[in-house]
Amino acid sequence: MKEVMAIVRLNMVNQTKRALLAAGFPSITCRKVLGRGKKKVNFTVAQATPLEIARKTPGIAETLSEVHRLVPKRFITLIVKDDEVQKAVDAIMWANKTGNPGDGKIFILPINGVYRVRTGETGEDAV
Amino acid sequence: MKEVMAIVRLNMVNQTKRALLAAGFPSITCRKVLGRGKKKVNFTVAQATPLEIARKTPGIAETLSEVHRLVPKRFITLIVKDDEVQKAVDAIMWANKTGNPGDGKIFILPINGVYRVRTGETGEDAV
Amino acid sequence: MKEVMAIVRLNMVNQTKRALLAAGFPSITCRKVLGRGKKKVNFTVAQATPLEIARKTPGIAETLSEVHRLVPKRFITLIVKDDEVQKAVDAIMWANKTGNPGDGKIFILPINGVYRVRTGETGEDAV
Repeated sequence: MKEVMAIVRLNMVNQTKRALLAAGFPSITCRKVLGRGKKKVNFTVAQATPLEIARKTPGIAETLSEVHRLVPKRFITLIVKDDEVQKAVDAIMWANKTGNPGDGKIFILPINGVYRVRTGETGEDAV
Repeated sequence: MKEVMAIVRLNMVNQTKRALLAAGFPSITCRKVLGRGKKKVNFTVAQATPLEIARKTPGIAETLSEVHRLVPKRFITLIVKDDEVQKAVDAIMWANKTGNPGDGKIFILPINGVYRVRTGETGEDAV
Repeated sequence: MKEVMAIVRLNMVNQTKRALLAAGFPSITCRKVLGRGKKKVNFTVAQATPLEIARKTPGIAETLSEVHRLVPKRFITLIVKDDEVQKAVDAIMWANKTGNPGDGKIFILPINGVYRVRTGETGEDAV
């Protein structure tokens, strides 16, 4: 089994939930995180962009933010079978791709074991 | 070494802490998360259940919640030696098993390394 | 690739961010967590320590806290290439080592895959 971890925009959680449910993944966990990627601010561009235009440009608020600033993000995790990783990744990609920086990242981690507390079931039965 | 991650009910954190401490695991980390499992709402049952009865039935509030609703959960993690995984799992199971849906899940992840910041110790000495 | 997870003091986040950026790791995620390590309270010492002295001793507030109390911590994660783990660990160590209990822990986890949502890139290109 694998853990699929996705860092996505705040306003994408509902859409991601729906996409995952439609793809057959009802069970997810969601956390608030702060994060930043590789993006660096080009202050020359920032200062040359009139505010009117900046406001109408998707993603510009984040692009113009400070270099070291951490921005609020949502962190979604789900546990899937090995052969379902791609399906989960595709659903998250589909729901979150806007083409602007800050769309997020997906990480796949190995899982050695799963237990359902209520029944004590373990392995794939417990997912 | 392994990371043991448990998603449990809000009101079970203290009991889980005590059970883990008694089993020899004093070091834990706890986070707030939102999550949902596989459970689907049966609206026919929901509407047919008188409120008086519903209030006296353990777990019914969660059972009657919306399909897509994420519920607040607590996420407890600890790092244990390979041969202590089962002992930690048993302690968490013992503290959290009520028999109702929503008791939680436990996941085991591999850990490649551990460092104690204060001393620079690494490996099992740093756990 | 590997996930580097560090549990550090609240007031060390900015310093850790700067140290990681200087070491070539701009991309991080930060979360609020509650945690406790192995430290046990020695109540004899606690009661024998005059408050005047206690206030001037670094780390004593945490040392004298209750045995089971979870303290607020920050949880920083970043994804690095296999051969950069040590560089990231060194940067976090450097920023966080005060020599007092509670400096934190660093854990290394294996990562099986990474995807950039915006472009669909995968593997090392997506880090």
